[in-house]
Amino acid sequence: MRVLGIDPGLRNLGWGVIEADGSRLCHVANGVCKSSGADLAQRLLSLHAQLTDILGLYGPDTAAVEQTFVNKDGAGTLKLGQARGIAMLVPAQAGIAVGEYAPNTVKKTVVGVGHADKQQVDHMVRMQLPGVKITGPDAADALAIAMCHAFHARAGGRLEDALRKVGA
Amino acid sequence: MRVLGIDPGLRNLGWGVIEADGSRLCHVANGVCKSSGADLAQRLLSLHAQLTDILGLYGPDTAAVEQTFVNKDGAGTLKLGQARGIAMLVPAQAGIAVGEYAPNTVKKTVVGVGHADKQQVDHMVRMQLPGVKITGPDAADALAIAMCHAFHARAGGRLEDALRKVGA
Repeated sequence: MRVLGIDPGLRNLGWGVIEADGSRLCHVANGVCKSSGADLAQRLLSLHAQLTDILGLYGPDTAAVEQTFVNKDGAGTLKLGQARGIAMLVPAQAGIAVGEYAPNTVKKTVVGVGHADKQQVDHMVRMQLPGVKITGPDAADALAIAMCHAFHARAGGRLEDALRKVGA
Repeated sequence: MRVLGIDPGLRNLGWGVIEADGSRLCHVANGVCKSSGADLAQRLLSLHAQLTDILGLYGPDTAAVEQTFVNKDGAGTLKLGQARGIAMLVPAQAGIAVGEYAPNTVKKTVVGVGHADKQQVDHMVRMQLPGVKITGPDAADALAIAMCHAFHARAGGRLEDALRKVGA
């Protein structure tokens, strides 16, 4: 199963693709889409085009986007929301399901604790994807989201298998 | 000049198309896109598809989207931001410029005062677009945004003409 993780942002949108075969994870690619353009519409258009290319190039089977941290900065939340709209739309346009995970769930899954800092996340991503070259912190987060999604998809599948076996 | 106005929202996204010939305004169409789907990605996909159809059907020359009111409700701002991302993207994908206006600018342009209530806006939209049948409050707001954009585009054009005449 090929998984695309997205860490949404209007300036820097991190993305990471991994291949998950059971519990074995393998790095495929990662990067950061930088939005360009004279106005907001053009910047969103540029993010949409870059993300569409990534979907076309790596053909993921499923995708996951980080649930945006909503804080008191309304203007920042709005900007992030707009970028997140694009991040959710593009995989849906490609016909693949889009999972959502809270930042704490991602950290808990990848590091083991919900309050892990960025360095710990980065370290665990490198540990579990040996030889990976990470483009930057947003790409590391995106890989962590992909790993989190792969884990939960696998756990969900195992639960379904177990339920089938007991005839539930 | 054909103008599309959009009042973004995740549940109800209002839209309105007018034809502006100098100061003469004429109603073309208005409506509300309702998002449907099991999850957020599907709802955004459904908004994107409906708005793309509207662009294809009415072929506006320019578009404008209301600047979202950012309040203390972070979760609400985020939802609105996601819908607004789609509202900005679709006209940009069609290759047309997308203007942005603060709610107060729209009210001040259409009603004459920045603190006008919804009923006043609705009244002035009906006054200036005789015979219009309005689908609902979100569509009325969208028509007001289109009218505001037509006015500012015309004022901008006249300013440019005047500057050209004086050789500035």
